[in-house]
Amino acid sequence: MKRLDTSAPAFAAEFAALLDTARETTSRVDAAVAAIIAEVRARGDAALLDCTARFDGWTPADAAALRVTEAEIAAATAGIPAELLAALDLAAERIERFHAAQKPADLALPDPAGLTLGMRWNALDAVGLYVPGGKASYPSSVLMNAIPARVAGVARIAMAVPCPGGVLNPLVLAAARRAGVTEVYRIGGAQAVAALAWGTASIAPVDRIVGPGNAYVAEAKRQVFGRVGIDSIAGPSEVVVLADATNDPRHVAVDLLAQAEHDESAQAILITEDAGFADAVAAAVEAELKVLPRGAIAGESWRRHGAVILVRDWAEAFALVNRLAPEHLQLMLPDPRAALAEVRHAGAAFLGRYCPEALGDYVAGPNHVLPTGRTARFASGLSVFDFLKRTTWVEASAEGLAAIGPAAVALAEAEGLQAHARSVALRLPG
Amino acid sequence: MKRLDTSAPAFAAEFAALLDTARETTSRVDAAVAAIIAEVRARGDAALLDCTARFDGWTPADAAALRVTEAEIAAATAGIPAELLAALDLAAERIERFHAAQKPADLALPDPAGLTLGMRWNALDAVGLYVPGGKASYPSSVLMNAIPARVAGVARIAMAVPCPGGVLNPLVLAAARRAGVTEVYRIGGAQAVAALAWGTASIAPVDRIVGPGNAYVAEAKRQVFGRVGIDSIAGPSEVVVLADATNDPRHVAVDLLAQAEHDESAQAILITEDAGFADAVAAAVEAELKVLPRGAIAGESWRRHGAVILVRDWAEAFALVNRLAPEHLQLMLPDPRAALAEVRHAGAAFLGRYCPEALGDYVAGPNHVLPTGRTARFASGLSVFDFLKRTTWVEASAEGLAAIGPAAVALAEAEGLQAHARSVALRLPG
Repeated sequence: MKRLDTSAPAFAAEFAALLDTARETTSRVDAAVAAIIAEVRARGDAALLDCTARFDGWTPADAAALRVTEAEIAAATAGIPAELLAALDLAAERIERFHAAQKPADLALPDPAGLTLGMRWNALDAVGLYVPGGKASYPSSVLMNAIPARVAGVARIAMAVPCPGGVLNPLVLAAARRAGVTEVYRIGGAQAVAALAWGTASIAPVDRIVGPGNAYVAEAKRQVFGRVGIDSIAGPSEVVVLADATNDPRHVAVDLLAQAEHDESAQAILITEDAGFADAVAAAVEAELKVLPRGAIAGESWRRHGAVILVRDWAEAFALVNRLAPEHLQLMLPDPRAALAEVRHAGAAFLGRYCPEALGDYVAGPNHVLPTGRTARFASGLSVFDFLKRTTWVEASAEGLAAIGPAAVALAEAEGLQAHARSVALRLPG
Repeated sequence: MKRLDTSAPAFAAEFAALLDTARETTSRVDAAVAAIIAEVRARGDAALLDCTARFDGWTPADAAALRVTEAEIAAATAGIPAELLAALDLAAERIERFHAAQKPADLALPDPAGLTLGMRWNALDAVGLYVPGGKASYPSSVLMNAIPARVAGVARIAMAVPCPGGVLNPLVLAAARRAGVTEVYRIGGAQAVAALAWGTASIAPVDRIVGPGNAYVAEAKRQVFGRVGIDSIAGPSEVVVLADATNDPRHVAVDLLAQAEHDESAQAILITEDAGFADAVAAAVEAELKVLPRGAIAGESWRRHGAVILVRDWAEAFALVNRLAPEHLQLMLPDPRAALAEVRHAGAAFLGRYCPEALGDYVAGPNHVLPTGRTARFASGLSVFDFLKRTTWVEASAEGLAAIGPAAVALAEAEGLQAHARSVALRLPG
């Protein structure tokens, strides 16, 4: 863990180094992924069967066996404790309510020249949702990716989840059912992305693919981009906590570690104005690391990428937050709403001392798929907007065209586009 | 030009072939672009000077000479006819008004469990606008790219435009000034994209780069994506015109050619239910091609990619439109609003017989930067949304946390993330 102090002479250089540290090593899998995509495009379902045997360690009987049936979902989810299903349901309800509130309205604007200008939002027809297999197969991510699509009005939500050894995660299936996923396929990797983008005899193509995955999945999404839309490629997770000395140091310590336990590349940063409080949090982190089941991972993240930054005042802290543009931001200050007003760049903010970021990971309602690695400067979390697109429209009468058409003719001629000019001029009076 | 008829047995195959035809040849410039970006990152302004001498055929005296001064803009634009400036101003005003109407509202939702959930929109800090040099240097594109950024509230709008031989396009500069561009640099190609993404001593980095460019620019945008945001990579332009026999065949013919004159890869498609009208339009196209200044280009586009599709009824036409997902759609039908309601996928629609697409290219108000090549299935035209991003937020009291926290604990434990569970559990009562 690094300690920085804004009053130290070396601060500017140290903070710049913190900003510039790449926390992720990227592996080059371009060629391998291109080969898999080419195989799926050429051989369709047969390629999916081969890839599944090769990479996932089980051999589907035929293409139909790639699809998870309703009966299989019912059987797999039958043993889930009622309390856990109720928690999933509460989360789903709250995520639905928040994302429904995001839905934008269409526009229809009469204008001074007598035209009408408008904008219509339409849902995508079909979306593919990639869900990682094994340990990183999180039911909460299924809710967060699928519910905004369903709320937007997407009719087909096709989920692909690799099943190493053929085994499915029951809670992931329960989340898929609750979220409104319409098709589940037990395929993964670049072959799943290729199948969703290009389609096979048994899997219809989608229009956009979302959801996290390993290096092969990320590269496959890059390669099919253009054929379909994709979401952004997420990097390691991060949190910045702004906390004054009235907070419980142990709460702050566990909040930092909740981020750090994701993986060794995660980053947790505390910003405070009180050196004694910073010491208390750092000590509490060490104590918690000793009892935390994922302490080895969290400890590695904290030592490599963790930081405590001491500021002279909160204005300084807000300026640092805007340069960090963190994925998650906890504002544990007396007036968190006033603090939020100073923040221009953050994926999601958590206000007050009773609002740990983990609440947002599961049940608060806003999405937990958020921009990482300073991309909150220009990117946003997943939302209904990812599953909607706009058609703008113009309606003109003869009078409306007469009012603004001559300007179009002048500009088209200046650009040397005579057919453009003529298509307007032919319709002008006289 | 192809003629298709939905009642012909071969129609399904012919239409599928039309959909699948790639109209653009892509050149592989990955390595050359990577080398230029590496050079700009390593050597900054010095690399920009070298690249400008090498690719643009003029040698700037120093880095300061890359920036276009206010005095240069004033001098260059002094000779523009007043009528043309007035047309530019009308266009700018109308584009401003439409994009201002797009601005979304923040959310703050109290919820049943006693929390407050919210979403704030913030503008990006800085945007880079790439403008091609030479013949494709269109003032209308400067307005369409820069105005939404300014309306969104972006403080810095830095424009890069290559100046072959050092010569600037006066109307492009006038458009930049009118649109609120804050900095203009006479640089182009991959080196301009690299400078905007990474910054140099004389050019501060931006957060997102938009605007069209050649293969080098497109590849450079791909390579800097992640460091900054980018807009989508536009392909060749296209229009679909739905027109019944009450329209003037010559109007429709010129509308088709206004699209075809962009370049040989452009595509213009007429869909009608009247075979005689289709013949009349085809004849009018041939007549117009003989007198059109860009007739050679438009003719090549029409012969290679143009199509006339005869349908049995308009419902069939709407279904074809949704499969084509065209960039531009003209609805020259008796009830164009009813027709629009049937369209799920199109970049921009133009309603009625007095609304040629060229009106939207210049002065109507909605953006002319639109999704091409069937990407309107999942993508939208440029808008204020491209220059805004969202921060979601959650505010919880002790009571709010007590209401929903236990569900978060249950889900975190099910996912094996104990620090997540503990960060909530520690704050629960008792």
